[in-house]
Amino acid sequence: MLRTHTCGTLRIEHINQTVTLCGWVQKSRDLGGMTFVDLRDRYGITQLAFNMDTNADLCLQARKLGREYVVRATGLVKERESKNSQMATGDIEIVVTAFDILNESVTPPFTIEENTDGGDDLRMKYRYLDLRRASVRANLQLRHKVAQQTRTFLDAQDFIEVETPVLIKSTPEGARDFVVPSRMNPGEFYALPQSPQTFKQLLMVSGFDRYYQIVKCFRDEDLRADRQPEFTQIDCEMSFVEQEDILNMFEGLVKHLFKQVKGIEINNLPRMTYADAMKFYGSDKPDTRFDMKFVELNEVVKGKNFPVFDNAELVVGICAKGCADYTRKQLDELTDFVKRPQIGATGLVYARVQADGTIKSSVDKFYDETALKLWVEAFNAQPGDLILLLAGQADKTRKALNELRLEMGTRLGLRDKNKFSCLWVIDFPLLEFNEEENRFFAMHHPFTSPKPEDIELLNDSNKIGHVRANAYDMVINGVEVGGGSVRIFNRDLQARMFEILGFTKEEAQHQFGFLMNAFEYGAPPHAGIAFGFDRLCSLFGGADSIRDFIAFPKNNSGRDVMIDAPSTIDEKQMNELNIKTIL
Amino acid sequence: MLRTHTCGTLRIEHINQTVTLCGWVQKSRDLGGMTFVDLRDRYGITQLAFNMDTNADLCLQARKLGREYVVRATGLVKERESKNSQMATGDIEIVVTAFDILNESVTPPFTIEENTDGGDDLRMKYRYLDLRRASVRANLQLRHKVAQQTRTFLDAQDFIEVETPVLIKSTPEGARDFVVPSRMNPGEFYALPQSPQTFKQLLMVSGFDRYYQIVKCFRDEDLRADRQPEFTQIDCEMSFVEQEDILNMFEGLVKHLFKQVKGIEINNLPRMTYADAMKFYGSDKPDTRFDMKFVELNEVVKGKNFPVFDNAELVVGICAKGCADYTRKQLDELTDFVKRPQIGATGLVYARVQADGTIKSSVDKFYDETALKLWVEAFNAQPGDLILLLAGQADKTRKALNELRLEMGTRLGLRDKNKFSCLWVIDFPLLEFNEEENRFFAMHHPFTSPKPEDIELLNDSNKIGHVRANAYDMVINGVEVGGGSVRIFNRDLQARMFEILGFTKEEAQHQFGFLMNAFEYGAPPHAGIAFGFDRLCSLFGGADSIRDFIAFPKNNSGRDVMIDAPSTIDEKQMNELNIKTIL
Repeated sequence: MLRTHTCGTLRIEHINQTVTLCGWVQKSRDLGGMTFVDLRDRYGITQLAFNMDTNADLCLQARKLGREYVVRATGLVKERESKNSQMATGDIEIVVTAFDILNESVTPPFTIEENTDGGDDLRMKYRYLDLRRASVRANLQLRHKVAQQTRTFLDAQDFIEVETPVLIKSTPEGARDFVVPSRMNPGEFYALPQSPQTFKQLLMVSGFDRYYQIVKCFRDEDLRADRQPEFTQIDCEMSFVEQEDILNMFEGLVKHLFKQVKGIEINNLPRMTYADAMKFYGSDKPDTRFDMKFVELNEVVKGKNFPVFDNAELVVGICAKGCADYTRKQLDELTDFVKRPQIGATGLVYARVQADGTIKSSVDKFYDETALKLWVEAFNAQPGDLILLLAGQADKTRKALNELRLEMGTRLGLRDKNKFSCLWVIDFPLLEFNEEENRFFAMHHPFTSPKPEDIELLNDSNKIGHVRANAYDMVINGVEVGGGSVRIFNRDLQARMFEILGFTKEEAQHQFGFLMNAFEYGAPPHAGIAFGFDRLCSLFGGADSIRDFIAFPKNNSGRDVMIDAPSTIDEKQMNELNIKTIL
Repeated sequence: MLRTHTCGTLRIEHINQTVTLCGWVQKSRDLGGMTFVDLRDRYGITQLAFNMDTNADLCLQARKLGREYVVRATGLVKERESKNSQMATGDIEIVVTAFDILNESVTPPFTIEENTDGGDDLRMKYRYLDLRRASVRANLQLRHKVAQQTRTFLDAQDFIEVETPVLIKSTPEGARDFVVPSRMNPGEFYALPQSPQTFKQLLMVSGFDRYYQIVKCFRDEDLRADRQPEFTQIDCEMSFVEQEDILNMFEGLVKHLFKQVKGIEINNLPRMTYADAMKFYGSDKPDTRFDMKFVELNEVVKGKNFPVFDNAELVVGICAKGCADYTRKQLDELTDFVKRPQIGATGLVYARVQADGTIKSSVDKFYDETALKLWVEAFNAQPGDLILLLAGQADKTRKALNELRLEMGTRLGLRDKNKFSCLWVIDFPLLEFNEEENRFFAMHHPFTSPKPEDIELLNDSNKIGHVRANAYDMVINGVEVGGGSVRIFNRDLQARMFEILGFTKEEAQHQFGFLMNAFEYGAPPHAGIAFGFDRLCSLFGGADSIRDFIAFPKNNSGRDVMIDAPSTIDEKQMNELNIKTIL
């Protein structure tokens, strides 16, 4: 080894030892007779001291060290005269007796410090320099720890990690596949997996019983903010279980992770049906760090000649505690917020419950004090509270109110990144009607089992949309971190499902015949779940973006701007692959 | 859970407990009054007993259970009358009181037993059934354990696992890349990584200091036996180290794996230079489970008017202990063996050292007893030994003799799969001249550092082929399980290296500019290694083929015959990707 210690290890008990450290020059200071150099590595920072009086040559050389030079320094550990309690190594310094420059550095394009002057694009291009910053490094160390602890927990529960293939078969259902032309099979393509779904189900058919994998998956989608074309899942599957067993097992995993990674004890996860989540939060991933549940007011507000409410399918609102003193300007802001095209409400009605208990609303023309009292009762609002109402088509209005609720939560400081609220959302609908394509899509995926008590409804075209699935999502702080389902394990039911989704018999057999065939050879009951690993890490790290928890992320155009990929390939390579580009 | 126990757990101490098991019907036997069903799961097999006298209905139902039916059975654990000491659960059986058929099975296309009647192709097509066989399952469990123990060791040594991207940039050097057309960047392609080499080096530049990853890699090569288009590596890199540190660290890893996975203590790994490996074994991956080193005889055999030897660049042989009694037929077989086109020797000369010390050779016409005595001395051969000689162009002859040596090792039973002989081969040449392309290729890869003492030779076109690299391979039982090198970390030397490999400045900058640029910002000295994980697992499993240590392998045409991939994709998908196939 070129070093005896790292830059994070030396303490007062090492005094008078001769040590050798390697690292990067974080910064240096000349104080007349002394030169101090902060040497940085992955483990910390240690101060190197050079004394003009005792070793002028060395000190003069040290003064030439630039930022980010790579240095090896040997010297004696000494107690500092002025200690730095902010640094783990702040009690000591190294009085350097010899050093080498292992490599020089040109001036970095941005400062390698927490408050860097580098913009996003620059830091992406020089990602290898951005990764030197302590916070970015800490994110990847956190990621490593989450992976370790995930494996520790699942290994102890007899799960076996099995690698499934990356070069698989393209299937049109779901998101777009990335494809890979096969040179050895001209005209044919592999696809990269969107998830190892069918393979993990085949492993259950094989009797592997408890499977997991921390695995890369791929989706060729237009990248909205914070989506990546390649992402990582904690992918799990179990046999001989019911939904209850999966919920218990993976509640256990998440508790273990919170405890081991964050030092936080998490209570048992409450469960909420999809129907309740939509009714009370307007979202299948409610942020339950704060209450502010929806209250529906159709019964209370209709028939007062206010056409907006009278014509609305749903009038629904929230009560913002202590916001009765919102100014006109603040209320206008909220109105503008809900009227933005992405949210799409037509307006916002409010009612202030004033300190004296009287109520002041934006629709006083239609609702007198008596009528407004009924609102207050419905919300159990207190003096000082602000009632905010939206009205319109039910689904759209709930969706808009969800956004408003989150906005109010943010404004009221109720969405603390260091507070965690986890729950299960259960009883999802099996199918979702797509107006554009005029057919049903699987809400989770085509392998999800309907609830046994709802299977009958599959044969009733009017009720098919009401069939519930044994599907579940884990939601933390309004983020869906994981989701899964009990699977179909019967060939006929699986075939029926493909039929409902608009597959012809031939298409179903061509694309998923291997799975349906496998179901004929003794498939066990099975169920599973997959967690978004990048998202889970960013949540644990208290960050909004997954990008900083991925070592080498791509930008919103799917480009790695550091290595400049994707890029053109040469004619010869394309000929070998039997393809050409059409531009 | 649908079960209380697994089929591998019940013992004599569970007697009189009521239990519920789930599993597959391995087989059933009707013995008049009793029916016995062997129920199998991942953990073992447990005998279910049905009694015609006490519960005729249930017994009759049980008789209808076919092979591979999935069953849940509840009953009382009883001590068996006739115990089976071959089975972990052989002391007990379950007297069944109730059971359900969870799923039926049609007759499997081959028997799910150790000695199956299924051929390779059939078992590949129904891989999910082949995975039910105990030995195949054991292989994947072994793989899981090797991965676990690898992580345990490296985590304890402060290595951090970092995921590197799968969608990267195509580079013409090395094997063929698999490529992925980018929809969002028309006309451009990602490549799948042949290894995370450049990314792990960038992580060193970032200061990550000790990195590892168990990671999928991809090579679009014509698949010789036992190559897979996707394979898994244990990929590692360290900073501030020298070759010696890498050898010690990963010698530690391999010792740990042997100890934890196989229960075997491995001695310190001997080191052999590439030059010695070629001279004494004719291979850079010598099988050192047995000795039988090459002895060169030029000095001894020339000038006796035997033109084959006189005209040969090299006369070299091995001494096969105790094989003097080989029959004419056996010797002819060996001659045929070395004359096969893949081996390419022109003939085989032998000399038997007979019991009385006299020597009988196939070239007695040219070599008298005195001359042959010199052979015997050179080999230190004993009565009963057989000397086998090849002659010709040096490299070709060594290569052929390597094959003969391995063949003799096999014939003599010296290549026991349960015996392990590990070593390091070091001091590889940096470059390898390719006659076809009339240029040098990197023997390891273009990022490998020449030995500092040989760097001078890079400027001498006559000596450039003699430059040695700080590159090393770990060899176990004649298999290269891992290889690596000390890396170049200086921009100018890296640029010089690309120049030697025939890159123009522009090509080098276009393809590897990001790495060379990174070297300008304070790159630390670093070195690394990668192990072939599939190969390591097959070696630990005592198998020749990696295929059975991969859950879902591809065949020699790169096809997954189970899911039928690769396959055609539709026109719309190709249009979106801006490509078309040319057939």
